[in-house]
Amino acid sequence: MRPENTPVPALQPHAHEGADCRAVASVLSRVGDKWSVLVIMLLIDGPRRFNELKRMIGGISQRMLTLTLRGLERDGLVTRTIFPTIPPRVDYELTDLGRGLAQPVRALGQWAFEHIPEIERARSGFDARNGED
Amino acid sequence: MRPENTPVPALQPHAHEGADCRAVASVLSRVGDKWSVLVIMLLIDGPRRFNELKRMIGGISQRMLTLTLRGLERDGLVTRTIFPTIPPRVDYELTDLGRGLAQPVRALGQWAFEHIPEIERARSGFDARNGED
Repeated sequence: MRPENTPVPALQPHAHEGADCRAVASVLSRVGDKWSVLVIMLLIDGPRRFNELKRMIGGISQRMLTLTLRGLERDGLVTRTIFPTIPPRVDYELTDLGRGLAQPVRALGQWAFEHIPEIERARSGFDARNGED
Repeated sequence: MRPENTPVPALQPHAHEGADCRAVASVLSRVGDKWSVLVIMLLIDGPRRFNELKRMIGGISQRMLTLTLRGLERDGLVTRTIFPTIPPRVDYELTDLGRGLAQPVRALGQWAFEHIPEIERARSGFDARNGED
């Protein structure tokens, strides 16, 4: 494990600029969307049907799951396969691109999970100092 | 470099549930906020003053930068130091926690940057198939 005060080299400068910056931001905003992150995580082990995902996530509406899957499909991260059974079966699966994204997302999720207590302590301290609750 | 189809182990199940899930989501939403990500990136090399950050980012309003820095400070990711000069000087600096977060955020930003062309191709293809523009 890397000590936390080791310097980290900055992103290449052009990654911060104009169109590239906006494109990176649009990918990161997918990561800031908790439903997208959960779906990506749940698809790591293999394809899932819509209703399986809905049950596994819990607390997500039909409409929100549809929108989330559509956004992931549009970004080329997830494929949607319809099997002509009766009733038709629809499977969602990560693409190679989606599996590639799952790696750094998982590392970030793991970091977040491990540092929740520190962040929550910081928030309480900040709010106490600034008279919020 | 890991081949993209190597299975990635899933997050521990309890990371998806209830309070933990919401706490992880609140950290990830910080990452989904492009201004927070840019500020974290710009502070990797050392402390910066408010106006330096404003100039380096470009296109961010005074108010938005203030809010972003306040959010990062509240999360314990950034410290704010006031030097009693005339006029007073205010420096922002990553904490150890912030430097720790910068690592996985940078890996993710790098992934996004490298895969922008694939994602944009996927979006164009999806929109063409679905009659959007």
